[in-house]
Amino acid sequence: MKVLLKNGTVVNVFTGELEKTNVLMDGSVIAGVGEYTDSEADVVRDVKDKYICPGFIDGHLHIESTMLLPPELARVCVPHGTTAVVTDPHEIANVCGVKGIEFMLEASENIPMTVYVMLPSCVPATRFDESGAVLTAAELEKFYGHPRVLGLAEVMNYPGVIAGEPGIMDKIRSAREKGFTVNGHAPLLSGKDLDRYIAAGIYDDHECSSADEAKERIRKGQRIMVRQGTAARNLSDLLPLFEEPWAHRCLLVTDDKHPADLLNNGHIDDMIRTAVSAGRDPVTCIRMATLWAAEAFGLKRIGAVAPGYTADLLVLHDLEHVVAAQVYKNGEIVAENGAMTAKLPTMPGNGLMKEMCNTFHIRELTPDDFTLHYSGKKNCRVMKLVKGQLITEELITEIDFDKDNGADISRDIAKIAVWERHRNTGHCGLGFISGLGMKTGAIASSVSHDSHNLIVAGVKETDMALAANTVRAMGGGCTVVKDGEVLCKMPLPVAGLMTAGAAADIASQNESLRKCVHRLGVPEGVEPFMTTAFVSLPVIPHLKMTTCGLVDVDAQKRVDLTVG
Amino acid sequence: MKVLLKNGTVVNVFTGELEKTNVLMDGSVIAGVGEYTDSEADVVRDVKDKYICPGFIDGHLHIESTMLLPPELARVCVPHGTTAVVTDPHEIANVCGVKGIEFMLEASENIPMTVYVMLPSCVPATRFDESGAVLTAAELEKFYGHPRVLGLAEVMNYPGVIAGEPGIMDKIRSAREKGFTVNGHAPLLSGKDLDRYIAAGIYDDHECSSADEAKERIRKGQRIMVRQGTAARNLSDLLPLFEEPWAHRCLLVTDDKHPADLLNNGHIDDMIRTAVSAGRDPVTCIRMATLWAAEAFGLKRIGAVAPGYTADLLVLHDLEHVVAAQVYKNGEIVAENGAMTAKLPTMPGNGLMKEMCNTFHIRELTPDDFTLHYSGKKNCRVMKLVKGQLITEELITEIDFDKDNGADISRDIAKIAVWERHRNTGHCGLGFISGLGMKTGAIASSVSHDSHNLIVAGVKETDMALAANTVRAMGGGCTVVKDGEVLCKMPLPVAGLMTAGAAADIASQNESLRKCVHRLGVPEGVEPFMTTAFVSLPVIPHLKMTTCGLVDVDAQKRVDLTVG
Repeated sequence: MKVLLKNGTVVNVFTGELEKTNVLMDGSVIAGVGEYTDSEADVVRDVKDKYICPGFIDGHLHIESTMLLPPELARVCVPHGTTAVVTDPHEIANVCGVKGIEFMLEASENIPMTVYVMLPSCVPATRFDESGAVLTAAELEKFYGHPRVLGLAEVMNYPGVIAGEPGIMDKIRSAREKGFTVNGHAPLLSGKDLDRYIAAGIYDDHECSSADEAKERIRKGQRIMVRQGTAARNLSDLLPLFEEPWAHRCLLVTDDKHPADLLNNGHIDDMIRTAVSAGRDPVTCIRMATLWAAEAFGLKRIGAVAPGYTADLLVLHDLEHVVAAQVYKNGEIVAENGAMTAKLPTMPGNGLMKEMCNTFHIRELTPDDFTLHYSGKKNCRVMKLVKGQLITEELITEIDFDKDNGADISRDIAKIAVWERHRNTGHCGLGFISGLGMKTGAIASSVSHDSHNLIVAGVKETDMALAANTVRAMGGGCTVVKDGEVLCKMPLPVAGLMTAGAAADIASQNESLRKCVHRLGVPEGVEPFMTTAFVSLPVIPHLKMTTCGLVDVDAQKRVDLTVG
Repeated sequence: MKVLLKNGTVVNVFTGELEKTNVLMDGSVIAGVGEYTDSEADVVRDVKDKYICPGFIDGHLHIESTMLLPPELARVCVPHGTTAVVTDPHEIANVCGVKGIEFMLEASENIPMTVYVMLPSCVPATRFDESGAVLTAAELEKFYGHPRVLGLAEVMNYPGVIAGEPGIMDKIRSAREKGFTVNGHAPLLSGKDLDRYIAAGIYDDHECSSADEAKERIRKGQRIMVRQGTAARNLSDLLPLFEEPWAHRCLLVTDDKHPADLLNNGHIDDMIRTAVSAGRDPVTCIRMATLWAAEAFGLKRIGAVAPGYTADLLVLHDLEHVVAAQVYKNGEIVAENGAMTAKLPTMPGNGLMKEMCNTFHIRELTPDDFTLHYSGKKNCRVMKLVKGQLITEELITEIDFDKDNGADISRDIAKIAVWERHRNTGHCGLGFISGLGMKTGAIASSVSHDSHNLIVAGVKETDMALAANTVRAMGGGCTVVKDGEVLCKMPLPVAGLMTAGAAADIASQNESLRKCVHRLGVPEGVEPFMTTAFVSLPVIPHLKMTTCGLVDVDAQKRVDLTVG
């Protein structure tokens, strides 16, 4: 079918010009831009006073962070103008290995948003991680034939790259040999170490938190992914990149974005609006979100309104608000005025989906499983949270195990447990955390980077066990428990990370969790689920809790709970 | 070995900035750009007050047009800063088919200039051509695995593309499916026809002769190769492209360049100098000649001075004259102060080389072979040259066959013959040409686009036969004959197109030919060998001579010599 959009103003991403003209789509492809007339089309749409631009591309996100399966994510993002995303299924791969990657590829078939996949490079992230799988270069190999696989995802193990460790270098070599892209993740790396990291074949990064950091990298050949997620928000600091000579080497990404944020604010369009309201040129922003994103991955036929390009395009009301009136995917209208109009596939309940919903392998836990078998007073290492940051401090303080088994709400010291949940090994790290402000009850979650074991924080062993068993019974998810009562819960049965349900439902459950924690005494401004999601990741300094106990991240070694 | 270039000013092709800094090369790769010190290198070179930029890339040329084999071409071009060229072995493929492509790949191994190859898309160029080979999509297929093959060369058959003819569309599809580039060649195509041509997958062109033509194409997603050859010189008309928003979608190419031109003026550096002397920014020119050229072909690790990039780089005296003081290829110095310092391989005399030197298959010719067997006066079609252009006009005029067999120097009418020389079929087209200004003698040449049959022009049958037999005896080349004497000759025994000798020798032989023709009465300003090289190419309007006689190019049909 031939569809003519006439009288529009096309945003030319090659030149930055605005051209009043017509666009003819022939099936899934743009046939031409120019003086096409009604008689050449089967369907004619007058888009007078509106703008036509390519569909937006999110160059880097983890779909698992949205807690949605790809079809539901499309329902949320496509009306905002996103027609392609590049996902790193790092989280599900840590739980389910190659099956997790296969599932994400399968679950993103036949939806009106192209889901490109980068292969997780660091599963597990560190040798302290007890994840559900270990992915070698050989296991990743078979995915490179898939038409939507574009390369190797963020290489977080930058010390390994700089040192030339064979494991990670094999994965990089394998991707490079095939001409694929290798994504970077090396915050604050600079100078000669950055040179070594780049020279290994890593030509982008999404962890820049200042324009100067980004500019050094652009000068050295990297492309910069300007990230604006729900928690990590670099856009305002990187606004200097939204002009030449930097902009054409930059793209827009969300990395980790929560469903409520997507529903309330939007996706890539929200980033463009934010930049435009800060005075940046909307055409430059659109070029960053389209052609320049495609170029970063060597994608040849998306990201422009030009002959032979895939007919993924948007009709925008104006360039001030960058709101999509219509979204075309493969030449068909799939969203209009903020709502999806295309039919989405339903996820089958069998096959890989069934396997993904059976990833919680741990016995029922008891209050004793959350009890430290010490007595009297001992100096202990306590993981101390730093407000607004993912890093933790090591606090060494005296713990009286004879009072509440060491939990001490007067000093804001709660208990923290990480239970291995992939293979029912019974491995568990149990200790103390300070800074949650919790006065009673417990919380539990299966979203716990990067291994996604079962993490439980609380001040009462009975509540900790109830919270843990509640998540266990859901096959994954989050819960808040107080005095033997489950206050609220959010099931995430798909790998313990995602729901098969609707974005609005999960957003509202998530909001309930956020509110419920205050009934445990947690003060405003503290987000305990966001916090606990990172206390088990021993690549972030300084003291972290794993399934095998505390890890001193700086020294990269296990340490005892007690000191001396 | 680690080589440090210190105190230079690096031309940053990503940002356009100039940075005073040091560059460390480690073996064939650039290790880093920054504060590297003497102690980190095995060799230190102080390049104070000089500029460091990437090696230049010629994005499109036919090596056969230089008449040199690749090693000798490297000897000429590398000192001018060229470290990579993209060649289309269209000419040799028309003579030798797949063997010709194999030969060019083999002959360009182990030279300090990377020779990338685009596969000839139009062999033969038209159904009227009687070339040495016919190349199908299936035959091209096997070359796509070669690491230096980058795609499908200039698709000249644009009517075929617009009409969707299966033969050419198969070749394009095959290249696109593998993610390869398809080069364009569609002069003056515009509007909807251009849309159709581009949509077939053709995203560059080197035939633009005006900035407006180029701008339309850039807006539609094509990259523009700004061409400056020996004959076709578009640079001055395309100077408006040497700034944004156009420049980053443009690259520099020579297409067809003669050895004397290369020796006397240079290569890509000459284009940059010409543009700079016309007021263009040298940094923009250098970006066009490096990174943006590499990007056009999806080449990932050449074209920039950055970590991990191949250490192909130049030390320039200044940015006004853009003269290379030193040329580094794979981290080794290969040319200095305009002269090659690297050792070049000598071409073996056996194997493919032997086959390439045995392509002339035609019997010895006699004066009778150049005699038209008509008598009396007849109206005939005469190919009329148009000064300074490749097009010809059809002149219908009365020819008196009883006087000099129709040749008439009083009206500047000579005879023209095209003899099939690949398979000794005896096919021959014989007729008249006007505009050479030849008063006596004959010339003959085996450089005759695109089939490279034996072309002979003259006013005396005995001289025509001698000229033809002289070229035949050389196994290819050019000659000038007068009154039974060979005045000069230039042997081109490699496929009848190239010499295994030195650039200086062939340049001087070529110059002799240019001068000698004046002894036949050819006036200054007429280049008969350049002219005859195109009178047998029935894709250029209006009347051309082939091995099977005259062709009316506009009507795309054979026509008789006589009219009525």
